[in-house]
Amino acid sequence: MLSTGTRPGPDLTAIFDQISAIGSQPGEGVTRLAASAEDGVARRAFAEWMAQGGARVTHDAVGNQFACFEWAGQNAPWIFAGSHLDTQPRGGRFDGTLGVLAAGSVALDLHEEVRTGQFKPGRNLAILNWTNEEGARFQPSLTGSAVFSGALSLHEALGLRDGSATSLRDALAAIGIDGDSGAVPPRPEAYVELHVEQGRKLIEAGRQTGIVEGTWAARKITVRWIGRAAHTGPTPMSDRRDALLAAAQGIAAFETLIAARHHHLQRSAARIVIEPNSPNVVVERASVWFELRGPDIEELHTAGQVALAAFEKAAADTGTRLEVVADTLRAPASMDRRLLEIVDSAAQACGFVPLMMRSVAGHDAVALQNSGIPSALLFIPSVGGIAHHPDEFTEQEDVEAGVTVLKAALRRLVEGEYDAGR
Amino acid sequence: MLSTGTRPGPDLTAIFDQISAIGSQPGEGVTRLAASAEDGVARRAFAEWMAQGGARVTHDAVGNQFACFEWAGQNAPWIFAGSHLDTQPRGGRFDGTLGVLAAGSVALDLHEEVRTGQFKPGRNLAILNWTNEEGARFQPSLTGSAVFSGALSLHEALGLRDGSATSLRDALAAIGIDGDSGAVPPRPEAYVELHVEQGRKLIEAGRQTGIVEGTWAARKITVRWIGRAAHTGPTPMSDRRDALLAAAQGIAAFETLIAARHHHLQRSAARIVIEPNSPNVVVERASVWFELRGPDIEELHTAGQVALAAFEKAAADTGTRLEVVADTLRAPASMDRRLLEIVDSAAQACGFVPLMMRSVAGHDAVALQNSGIPSALLFIPSVGGIAHHPDEFTEQEDVEAGVTVLKAALRRLVEGEYDAGR
Repeated sequence: MLSTGTRPGPDLTAIFDQISAIGSQPGEGVTRLAASAEDGVARRAFAEWMAQGGARVTHDAVGNQFACFEWAGQNAPWIFAGSHLDTQPRGGRFDGTLGVLAAGSVALDLHEEVRTGQFKPGRNLAILNWTNEEGARFQPSLTGSAVFSGALSLHEALGLRDGSATSLRDALAAIGIDGDSGAVPPRPEAYVELHVEQGRKLIEAGRQTGIVEGTWAARKITVRWIGRAAHTGPTPMSDRRDALLAAAQGIAAFETLIAARHHHLQRSAARIVIEPNSPNVVVERASVWFELRGPDIEELHTAGQVALAAFEKAAADTGTRLEVVADTLRAPASMDRRLLEIVDSAAQACGFVPLMMRSVAGHDAVALQNSGIPSALLFIPSVGGIAHHPDEFTEQEDVEAGVTVLKAALRRLVEGEYDAGR
Repeated sequence: MLSTGTRPGPDLTAIFDQISAIGSQPGEGVTRLAASAEDGVARRAFAEWMAQGGARVTHDAVGNQFACFEWAGQNAPWIFAGSHLDTQPRGGRFDGTLGVLAAGSVALDLHEEVRTGQFKPGRNLAILNWTNEEGARFQPSLTGSAVFSGALSLHEALGLRDGSATSLRDALAAIGIDGDSGAVPPRPEAYVELHVEQGRKLIEAGRQTGIVEGTWAARKITVRWIGRAAHTGPTPMSDRRDALLAAAQGIAAFETLIAARHHHLQRSAARIVIEPNSPNVVVERASVWFELRGPDIEELHTAGQVALAAFEKAAADTGTRLEVVADTLRAPASMDRRLLEIVDSAAQACGFVPLMMRSVAGHDAVALQNSGIPSALLFIPSVGGIAHHPDEFTEQEDVEAGVTVLKAALRRLVEGEYDAGR
């Protein structure tokens, strides 16, 4: 990847390869779930790399890691950059990880300039690894950034439980995170996140960089059908209250109805947990995680009601009872205008013409922006738009483009350009 | 329960309470999956109870336990009686366990008569605890009895894997079962199993005992839909190959089609395993365990083809690929005529008029009968027909009726009445 000059420690290529190997299986991508043992190893590798380069590394009580470069003194404002090191099961290498390590690499380069007196920033910089962005192990997703920005209470976050009923609190404790580990920076003046696009818009437009203007909203509904366990053999069909049949009818009707009435919404049911899950026992409980995504809150409201009515019908038709376990709306974000203009201007100065675009997926930058922290999201292409799959890949030259723009933008931000624009 | 006279050790009520407590949670029934730690504890309690009463207790390489009473010398034929100590997740206390312990209690009573010279049988008796009857943890069910009777190879059985990919071999080794533990009795002259009905026919007929003449056939089909993992957000709907959507459509269509065309068949889909099972990743693989049960093999053949066509259609409609992982037919059994007449005659002599009936569920007696071991299945009522549920219950007076008939029948069999009827 990029030359890193004379700074100490591994360069971006080396650290990316090192961290990508943690939780990796040949052909199976990377499985590094939030607060797992693998996540613990990756966190330590990241902390060591940053500390070696001169950062003070700390974490807060929800496990967010901060690699702090206090260039401008303890009273100066902070700029944040980063992403997340957790992955989906069998996820890709670039999603999240590239954003953390690219920002770390840029920070080390800038720190070298500061250390040698070539550069005197007016702001401090922290590189962030946010906890449980993916929401694969603990729901909801974007946990760490939501806690930091005040959208989710620490108590609620630490009480989240995975599919084995392990709490986030206990999972973090198991990898050595028990409360904060020292002073954590305050809310930053601005946050910048580099991320792979997870779509094909950049490739179709022939651009190497994109800047997110706004994001789609997401409505996430988790429901549970409750029936009654019984022997799958002798139990008369008329006696059965089959929660898996209800869930199947609910999932099938959800797709049919939303495709017919709201066909441009993105929609999915991707997680199901059933009990007892034995071939010979009628299922007593089936929980399903549904998502609806679109640009317009009103439409998500209407579509959500359509979905809930379909779930109720599935319950009525199977003699089961429906419980709505969670029904949350992530509002569409408008990313910070002034900040995206700085990133755009930095990109143009480097010779890139970023595509102004929307993001369907949620990212930590979106959680922060929605809680009032000015945030920018810089995209680089994913080959084929593949995401959450072992085949996820971004070309080296596109990684270099992203790092170049991120470095230029962060340089301006630590120089104080965001505040100067007020 | 019944008085046990002067024989040593706990009586049936006490040992039933003791073993029912293993794996039990208040309100949650009993979870004692085959070859689990709980199963190991129950096996040791059973072995100790039998050994204390004078049995030689041994097990074979698939873990079937034999409590042997060698009353008639090593060359005499054997009679077997028993059932299974494994349960479903959150299963009932009576299913299987009662059959093992009632037979054990009867054996101890008879042994006391033999020991004191009141009774001189011409046959040996072994009380059986068959491994993994339920098929909850390892599929197929009826594993131990199928291996003993030659329908399933030991190698295949030990290679079965549970949902966590643990083999039956390793699970057994973890509870101390690694190969056989000494001489195991040969194929018996006859096998008798007492079991709760798991239906309402006895209650509706006002009878305390039933004798199974024959059983329904069962066709068990496990299929897997294979799609492609992708981000549930930005991935265009037209790109998705969603294996959970395919499974949901398959399960829903299976019920609709079979109900319309073969409405008197019992049918179910009660187990599903999906990967990755994260709310934010389109499901790549979904495996579902389907069952069809009915009296007629031809109809199961036709209905199975209807089901497979529906599964293929679900694959085609979702862009996924279908794999048939397993497709097995358990033939309907006609239980041994001469043996059921002996059990019936023994019951009538005790003042009971057994209902001649069919069983929808599989039992170890069915596996043995289908492999040529003359077998009888004696039913007693289940309140409300409830089975595979914590509320499963059989009244004390019905348990006593079952034990009385079982004892009378086993007395005749160890006296040699089965062979005398040739």
